[in-house]
Amino acid sequence: MGYLESIATPRDLRDLTAEQLEELAAEIREKLVATCARTGGHLGPNLGVVELTMAIHRVFESPIDRVVFDTGHQSYVHKLLTGRATAFDTLRQEGGLSGYPSRAESEHDIVENSHASTALSYADGLAKAYAIRGEERHVVAVIGDGALTGGMAWEALNNIAIAPKSRLVIVVNDNGRSYTPTIGGLANALTSLRTDPRYEQALDTVKKRLNSIPGVGPLAYDALHAMKKGVKDAIAPQGLFEDLGLKYVGPIDGHDRDALEQALSQAKKFNGPVIVHALTRKGFGYDAAERHEADQFHAPGPFDIVSGEEKPKGAIWTDVFAEEMVQLGEEREDLVAITAAMMHPVGLDRFAARFPDRTFDVGIAEQHAATCAAGLAMAGTHPVVAVYATFLNRAFDQVLMDVALHECGVTFVLDRSGVTGDDGASHNGMWDLSMLQVVPGLRLAAPRDASRLRELLREAVSVDDAPTVVRFPKGPPPADIPAIERVGGVDVLARGASPEVLVVGVGAMAATAMEAAALLADRGIVATVVDPRWVKPVDPALIDLARAHRLVVTIEDNGIVGGVGASVLQALNAAGVTTPVQIHGIPQEFLGHAKRAVILERIGLTPIALASAIAAAVDAQRVG
Amino acid sequence: MGYLESIATPRDLRDLTAEQLEELAAEIREKLVATCARTGGHLGPNLGVVELTMAIHRVFESPIDRVVFDTGHQSYVHKLLTGRATAFDTLRQEGGLSGYPSRAESEHDIVENSHASTALSYADGLAKAYAIRGEERHVVAVIGDGALTGGMAWEALNNIAIAPKSRLVIVVNDNGRSYTPTIGGLANALTSLRTDPRYEQALDTVKKRLNSIPGVGPLAYDALHAMKKGVKDAIAPQGLFEDLGLKYVGPIDGHDRDALEQALSQAKKFNGPVIVHALTRKGFGYDAAERHEADQFHAPGPFDIVSGEEKPKGAIWTDVFAEEMVQLGEEREDLVAITAAMMHPVGLDRFAARFPDRTFDVGIAEQHAATCAAGLAMAGTHPVVAVYATFLNRAFDQVLMDVALHECGVTFVLDRSGVTGDDGASHNGMWDLSMLQVVPGLRLAAPRDASRLRELLREAVSVDDAPTVVRFPKGPPPADIPAIERVGGVDVLARGASPEVLVVGVGAMAATAMEAAALLADRGIVATVVDPRWVKPVDPALIDLARAHRLVVTIEDNGIVGGVGASVLQALNAAGVTTPVQIHGIPQEFLGHAKRAVILERIGLTPIALASAIAAAVDAQRVG
Repeated sequence: MGYLESIATPRDLRDLTAEQLEELAAEIREKLVATCARTGGHLGPNLGVVELTMAIHRVFESPIDRVVFDTGHQSYVHKLLTGRATAFDTLRQEGGLSGYPSRAESEHDIVENSHASTALSYADGLAKAYAIRGEERHVVAVIGDGALTGGMAWEALNNIAIAPKSRLVIVVNDNGRSYTPTIGGLANALTSLRTDPRYEQALDTVKKRLNSIPGVGPLAYDALHAMKKGVKDAIAPQGLFEDLGLKYVGPIDGHDRDALEQALSQAKKFNGPVIVHALTRKGFGYDAAERHEADQFHAPGPFDIVSGEEKPKGAIWTDVFAEEMVQLGEEREDLVAITAAMMHPVGLDRFAARFPDRTFDVGIAEQHAATCAAGLAMAGTHPVVAVYATFLNRAFDQVLMDVALHECGVTFVLDRSGVTGDDGASHNGMWDLSMLQVVPGLRLAAPRDASRLRELLREAVSVDDAPTVVRFPKGPPPADIPAIERVGGVDVLARGASPEVLVVGVGAMAATAMEAAALLADRGIVATVVDPRWVKPVDPALIDLARAHRLVVTIEDNGIVGGVGASVLQALNAAGVTTPVQIHGIPQEFLGHAKRAVILERIGLTPIALASAIAAAVDAQRVG
Repeated sequence: MGYLESIATPRDLRDLTAEQLEELAAEIREKLVATCARTGGHLGPNLGVVELTMAIHRVFESPIDRVVFDTGHQSYVHKLLTGRATAFDTLRQEGGLSGYPSRAESEHDIVENSHASTALSYADGLAKAYAIRGEERHVVAVIGDGALTGGMAWEALNNIAIAPKSRLVIVVNDNGRSYTPTIGGLANALTSLRTDPRYEQALDTVKKRLNSIPGVGPLAYDALHAMKKGVKDAIAPQGLFEDLGLKYVGPIDGHDRDALEQALSQAKKFNGPVIVHALTRKGFGYDAAERHEADQFHAPGPFDIVSGEEKPKGAIWTDVFAEEMVQLGEEREDLVAITAAMMHPVGLDRFAARFPDRTFDVGIAEQHAATCAAGLAMAGTHPVVAVYATFLNRAFDQVLMDVALHECGVTFVLDRSGVTGDDGASHNGMWDLSMLQVVPGLRLAAPRDASRLRELLREAVSVDDAPTVVRFPKGPPPADIPAIERVGGVDVLARGASPEVLVVGVGAMAATAMEAAALLADRGIVATVVDPRWVKPVDPALIDLARAHRLVVTIEDNGIVGGVGASVLQALNAAGVTTPVQIHGIPQEFLGHAKRAVILERIGLTPIALASAIAAAVDAQRVG
């Protein structure tokens, strides 16, 4: 029996001695490794914030003080210290603990969104509200150096700098990496600090100075601050913050709990916005993670604890895209690629290795990715911007105004579209097929299998006067489904004699549609199954097909409001086609975390459920 | 006959003597004032960039070199110098010159979008593409200090800093203002520079140093640069840029053409990314503008040249909102207001004057505005975020993930929704009613008149567990339209005996619907006219009403794809109601600039056009 089980609330941390805390840290790391080895999860980032999270919870008093984690996947340690140690085995399992903060789990969690760079904005709002209400509560925002590359973080810093009444402590968790090494001018500035030999010396001085201060308070803070200004040229990055007028403490060794606690205590007593700059190592304390060059086990699937080797996975959609991109890059010198800090997860690492000068990692900066791509297109290249589907939401305005209005040939490749499951509400890519419908000129493709991904990607990059989008889900693609014929741009996949029902399968849902049609056939209902390939604009051939059937059924892995089904309905309505339309998609709500298959079952997007719904409509029509 | 008419291309500027250039500058100012006095337009910003634009066009060779203006409204001088002086009288008139850069007008224009903070991203892309293609072209991005508060600009700077091959000159047009004074830590840093007595001295030194350099080149640049580093503590803001690794030249007097040309020439020869920091005065050279305290004539309507007084306008929607906000602020201590650098245009100036501690101007930072509002709501206040409708596109992800997912009571007030007209494609607020449909839990109101704006704003701020949105157009509200009765939440505005047609008027289109119904009555067609008030979610009462009519007609001032009409159609389809739906809205395309009334006429959103379309459908039904 260790110490971890004895921590029911963060307050319990204060009763432990330094040695006990050290043992606790070891226990936490053991727990993180053992659990993630089984469930998968964001291991590397959490190994890096063990001491930091402990220090925060010893210095501040959550939930009176509020702790906001930017990109909530760094909150596992926080979960372990806020009464969820025994439940931790259920991490990322349906009905178990979420992989992100969850208000339903704990009063210590307030922000669930796992899109990056938001914490400082939330914290600015929280701190301002407490100041208005006269509540003496502190707000702690923990943000990585990677998330600082996102524009939102800059907008927030610019505002926090002029909010002197905000009791706001910004902890910069600087591990030099977002998913992979953080890029950009900011990262270079931080790196030069880390590699400067004067840094160690400065760090020592900081510690000694802090230790020599008998009482803590604004004066001591100022002394520290003045000292820091004195070595400004040696340790540069606070210049950035100080130019904005932000107080700065650091750099602090992020694995030295004493130093962290002292710095945080200083910051707390300042009662205004302060930056605490902590240097941490992703994967710290677990050998296999630290030596994992690609990403220090950022978010592995289940793995072997001793060897650190992940269980082998089959080929996924991403691999197909990755291969085809390299092939296209060989054929076309003008093809360039952009990723927003996700080189490996979106499969651009292979393209980057082959064509380093034609690959750009812009940081966690989807807005810039889209508009930079517009510029690249204006000057005669064809950019492919590969992002997770949910993250394109960040660049809606840029896709609309910067790319589409300017008729730029930019291809957006949306990985992890549809239900992703494990990572919770904010990772599901269930918005793109709706959001993008309004963009004039934009063409949107949803491949049903690996061959169609290759084909549609090729068609997409051949469009040079409008944005194109290719979207596909997480995981492995279904087996190829050959077309019987192509009508207009629509692939007919199955066709019986005198069919009653037209089933439109969108993307990977085409395979589901085929299975549903087989079940319908067993019930004596003949269906035509089609894959429109390009779902925007609606193909005139699809409208003709709809006219020739008694019922149209659309199936998509996207929110049901305003998606492909809705656009087909609207197109039929505009064309005066009165064939009824049954629309299947994801209910328009935030989905809890669970495996993709479990969620699809729950929301009725399985062949059996679909066949039942379709048969009910057909039966009603036959009676009517 | 002056010099302006002789400038057919920017190249012609090189033939003029210093004196002639000075006369030209005066001519340009005269032209700007005379034209804007008649047409209205962005006078103040353009008066501030006369010398800057001339210098850019003398040093660089557009269109080989590319000049990108952030917020294109500062491009009037550019238009005058690129062959459009004679056409300038038609500014902002239908068929005349656009108030923004326009690719259709000139090969010297490449970016038309007038949403702020984009220029650096475009420029990064352009410069990278030229580097890849081996083209020795320069890219000049002109960006204001206000636009630098937008997160995109930060994302771009972070990337430009690590693109050494980019021949990219960033001209920071620092006038200390966006619409009104720029806020935030960055602005403070820039202000401290302007007010530091050492600045004038430093500026003199810069000038002398530059003048004393016989040849210009990288060496001279480095000398300048080294000198600047020496006075770093006196003139601080370049620290921000230098911390990112960006070369910096400045500050330069933005009305001293010689100094500007020398600085730009230095920057050009560096052949890598460089910042040129120019200090300008908004409204420079026109007394009435310079002394206009609120905003230096940022974008006046037509005005009297001598007195500088704008032609009086009647009360607009904004005024109604402004009044009601103050009233609500008196009643509720927890009400707070947020603007994104648009205090006066969105009418929050009155609230700010009354409740300064409860009003926040976050800069041109809509993302931060939304998420900061989420934080404010989490801590017990109710924020009202007032923005132009088109700018909410920038915060789609934040509204969805940060506000709605967290069930925060935040009210977004969207001014200038629907067709705005004069300001061109990127200012029309025609996206919100579609984009917001997908946001779970969000409630969306469209008031039809001033009384309903007051009423719906009150209802909106009373919702504390979900985002609410109230949207209204530009200009004056129509006369109040009383309801005959309320069914569910739906106001019935007109009802005849045995009505055939249900006309759903969305927001200000309710008045149009009433006029169309009167025209229909003349043709013997009886219509019920309703205003749903809350258009999302679709009111069940509306579905019942639809069931009781033979035709449903929806009219909205929003893109036709996925808007209110589409959502009504989808709701009816889901409920099994087969009443046909005729959907009227804005065609899903980018609209050219013209007066709102002219555009509404062109796209068929007038009572006469609507009555014809409805009558045709009714006639067809009667025959059928």
